[in-house]
Amino acid sequence: MRASRYLIATLKENPSDAEIISHQLMLRAGMIRKLAAGLYTWLPLGLRVLRKVERIVREEMDRSGAQEVLMPAVQPAELWQESGRWQQYGGELLRLKDRHDRDFCFGPTHEEVITDLIRNELKSYKELPANFYQIQTKFRDERRPRFGVMRAREFLMKDAYSFHVSGESLDETYEVMHRTYCAIFDRLGLDYRPVVADSGAIGGNASHEFHVLASSGEDEIAFSTDSDYAANIEKAEALAPAGDRPAPSEAMTEIATPGQTTIAAIAEFLKVPAEKTVKTLLVKADAPEGEEAGLVALILRGDHTLNDIKAENLEGVAEPLTMATDEGIRRATGCAPGSIGPVNLSVPMIVDRTAAHLADFVCGANKEGYHLTGVNWERDVPLGRVEDLRNVVEGDPSPDGKGTLEIRRGIEVGHIFKLGNKYSKAMGATVLDEHGKSAVLEMGCYGIGVSRIVAAAIEQNHDDRGIIWPEAIAPFEVAIVTLNGHKSPAVQEAGEKLYAQLTEAGFDVLLDDRNERPGVKFADLELMGLPHRVVVSDRGLGAGTLEYKGRQDADKQDLAVDNVLDFLLAASPRHRS
Amino acid sequence: MRASRYLIATLKENPSDAEIISHQLMLRAGMIRKLAAGLYTWLPLGLRVLRKVERIVREEMDRSGAQEVLMPAVQPAELWQESGRWQQYGGELLRLKDRHDRDFCFGPTHEEVITDLIRNELKSYKELPANFYQIQTKFRDERRPRFGVMRAREFLMKDAYSFHVSGESLDETYEVMHRTYCAIFDRLGLDYRPVVADSGAIGGNASHEFHVLASSGEDEIAFSTDSDYAANIEKAEALAPAGDRPAPSEAMTEIATPGQTTIAAIAEFLKVPAEKTVKTLLVKADAPEGEEAGLVALILRGDHTLNDIKAENLEGVAEPLTMATDEGIRRATGCAPGSIGPVNLSVPMIVDRTAAHLADFVCGANKEGYHLTGVNWERDVPLGRVEDLRNVVEGDPSPDGKGTLEIRRGIEVGHIFKLGNKYSKAMGATVLDEHGKSAVLEMGCYGIGVSRIVAAAIEQNHDDRGIIWPEAIAPFEVAIVTLNGHKSPAVQEAGEKLYAQLTEAGFDVLLDDRNERPGVKFADLELMGLPHRVVVSDRGLGAGTLEYKGRQDADKQDLAVDNVLDFLLAASPRHRS
Repeated sequence: MRASRYLIATLKENPSDAEIISHQLMLRAGMIRKLAAGLYTWLPLGLRVLRKVERIVREEMDRSGAQEVLMPAVQPAELWQESGRWQQYGGELLRLKDRHDRDFCFGPTHEEVITDLIRNELKSYKELPANFYQIQTKFRDERRPRFGVMRAREFLMKDAYSFHVSGESLDETYEVMHRTYCAIFDRLGLDYRPVVADSGAIGGNASHEFHVLASSGEDEIAFSTDSDYAANIEKAEALAPAGDRPAPSEAMTEIATPGQTTIAAIAEFLKVPAEKTVKTLLVKADAPEGEEAGLVALILRGDHTLNDIKAENLEGVAEPLTMATDEGIRRATGCAPGSIGPVNLSVPMIVDRTAAHLADFVCGANKEGYHLTGVNWERDVPLGRVEDLRNVVEGDPSPDGKGTLEIRRGIEVGHIFKLGNKYSKAMGATVLDEHGKSAVLEMGCYGIGVSRIVAAAIEQNHDDRGIIWPEAIAPFEVAIVTLNGHKSPAVQEAGEKLYAQLTEAGFDVLLDDRNERPGVKFADLELMGLPHRVVVSDRGLGAGTLEYKGRQDADKQDLAVDNVLDFLLAASPRHRS
Repeated sequence: MRASRYLIATLKENPSDAEIISHQLMLRAGMIRKLAAGLYTWLPLGLRVLRKVERIVREEMDRSGAQEVLMPAVQPAELWQESGRWQQYGGELLRLKDRHDRDFCFGPTHEEVITDLIRNELKSYKELPANFYQIQTKFRDERRPRFGVMRAREFLMKDAYSFHVSGESLDETYEVMHRTYCAIFDRLGLDYRPVVADSGAIGGNASHEFHVLASSGEDEIAFSTDSDYAANIEKAEALAPAGDRPAPSEAMTEIATPGQTTIAAIAEFLKVPAEKTVKTLLVKADAPEGEEAGLVALILRGDHTLNDIKAENLEGVAEPLTMATDEGIRRATGCAPGSIGPVNLSVPMIVDRTAAHLADFVCGANKEGYHLTGVNWERDVPLGRVEDLRNVVEGDPSPDGKGTLEIRRGIEVGHIFKLGNKYSKAMGATVLDEHGKSAVLEMGCYGIGVSRIVAAAIEQNHDDRGIIWPEAIAPFEVAIVTLNGHKSPAVQEAGEKLYAQLTEAGFDVLLDDRNERPGVKFADLELMGLPHRVVVSDRGLGAGTLEYKGRQDADKQDLAVDNVLDFLLAASPRHRS
């Protein structure tokens, strides 16, 4: 492509309404433009990236044995009424009426449409398993669209749906999809983690999210230093510390702590680390319908945070998790909040695994303005029920027993999910099994945010000069910059010759033949993030060289004109054989 | 692809609601399924064809220098209000409201969005000309969607928009697009015609439609036997016959023709061909506002038909064309309809070019129940104004002077159009021209109905057994059929080996390894329209042969196993070097 005939729409200034770096850089590099809230036009440069991502996703889905289909974007309400989602789905579902006043929606996903197709087309277990996917524009009417294509209303998605006569078959396809997603993100050249997304308690690996790691990510991910284990921090299991609980060595002592009601204050006041304290959180207990709910105490180490989801999933704890009021705490314990503790507590307790491992700890004395030191489980207070209550922290042992946990932020770009029979049951999608009996289908669904990947790749790969594309999805792999090509036929000719040579060799090349100053061209190309830059100048040609600089290189280097192709072939992963 | 792992969804019966052959065959071959009126899911087999069409369109658009973009499907009403189309567009525009009650539409075209983009991005004539295209799902809320994907509500379209500072530049890009469209339809392997779509009177070649010829087409196209000339029959110019008008040879005679009021009846009654008669049609004349409109007589040869569009475009004729009432005719001529003629007619006349060339003709006598024979222009009645009034017929001379016209039916699959400044003016899209002055942009637009092409290709290429795909867009080029592969390891192995060999050579191959009877497989493959079929059987392998049959061949032939690849390479246009 010649830059002189291409829409190079770079911007010098950061657009004021772009909050995150990928949004800023996509606007500044001329990849996208906003049409309306959450609606973006992909300019030629941006679309090249989107199409490369799309192609990699398609090729790997095809390789996995999934079959590509294309379902309508506009879906009749009847199907959504059958599944129940017409009522359940909130304002994010863009509902519309056609000219005959019939109800439709602009599909955010296609479970209903594919289930309707399958119940009509497939009759026998012999036709299963089957996995169908599409790459399609979806619409989600976000209340507050933002962050550019990261959270747009209209977006490009790969969604796949698999059908099975047994859970075992679903498990197999789920594994194939897990491997396929890894292959996709490997090829994209991104640093990512497949993350366990559902609580282990519900049934193992029924759902994984795929996160691109980036410090700007919305989610916190805990992953092992030594294994593939990774989980959303809310879902990661906090193991009990290794070994036995240390033996008591101090006597339990009551100490006046006037006005000290927080862990930080107590630790400071008593000169003990927060790790030697426990905190006691009172929440509503689960109560039979009609009866008034009592309270239950959740005991954690002072420096740990409660994991709400783990807590509310526990038997005996009300869901959703509801903290007790100050008044409720007083009524139940006879003490003000800030001095509550497990010793002689008048409500049932659940103790976190790590808190249960403490010896000689500090806690509230259940007497306003007093705390206890040197407290020990069993000696001073019965331990009772122990559970996993807390969020993991860096350094925790990995739940799979291998290594310790690191915590990084991530951007969710894919999700694989065992749906079970939620849709097939509601919509009557059955086939005859091998015994000739009607069997409700098992389903899996597998999504990838194709347009979101583009933004996530930038969040992970940029510097203060612009985007740094992984080569597989760079809009162009190589930029050839002609300096003063308008005045120098030799430069012009050498640039054209190299352009032809590299294009012939299979590179995506941008020939920057614009009549602009070198600094303008270099800044544009760095902003646009092209991996390789070759400069053609009269001075270089005089010495038989071209100047090369990789996007991440600190220094330029001169290459003999005849060596440029071989150099690039060696430098470029896609072209290395 | 292995058929055993592929959704082969052929149907034996014709679906009752499919009126046209392409719709029937697309359903029966398992290419599409209906979701709701005008909304179709593309099954894997159909989508393969759609993607091949899409790829050819994309490659040729790229080659033309057009730049691909992707605009949102959902468009804000504000832009349509700026252009005026929010009010003008009828029920086909799918209007919708988002969760904040703001007005949007699901775009049927994108003139407003691209014009908005361009007015913001381009500032100087130096950035022009520029041509942007996208391949995107569009929505047109047809009142009565039918004919499957031929007239669906949701459809895949390639739309392109070019921008220019001068009409000359627009003309150049228009010509490039004309050539590009020809290249696209050539590569698709379709018999098509670019057709002049606007009246020559308005300004030459401001619009062309591209029609795929098929007897089921909705439009009639006249095209030259000897040149590229082609026009919608409504737009084709009817030339005056060559040579001078023959000299009179009969005397004008009045003849009683009681009860004979149609051309057919008069011709039969007087034993003259209809070609020797003229008919006189009375229509409303154009009148200054406020004045009552008189009538004007349009004189045509008896066997010709009036072209309404040509007539109403004439000065002096009311637009829209309005036939006179019987009462109006009596009042203006003093005679009942059925006996009107040019001689002594009391209203102004416009004579068709061919009628003006007649001698010794028959016409009404302006006296009920009487006609005149042997009438001659100038001798018996002044000729006055002569115009092109009629529809062309087969055998007419081509308007470009080369050959004669043939008439065939066509399906419109593409349209290129000089928009001028309709949108750029309404929306203020200007750049600075070379003199530093603000210039309103000239625009062209260029559409291709990508999904419609699939249906049109079938309308043109089918027989009573199913579809006959042009090789470039066949879902698979070659089918390998294994007979009893489940029982014969030799057949299975030979089939797999050939499959690997042909796939390696670049063919799209379907290996029909299903456990079905040969007749079922053959019927499916013929219905699906695959160009080449190779059968692997124990009997053939015993003789070292495979059985080959082209989709359009009358007979099968045996090929030596080792010759199959070379045979297919020679037989397949895409693979012939």
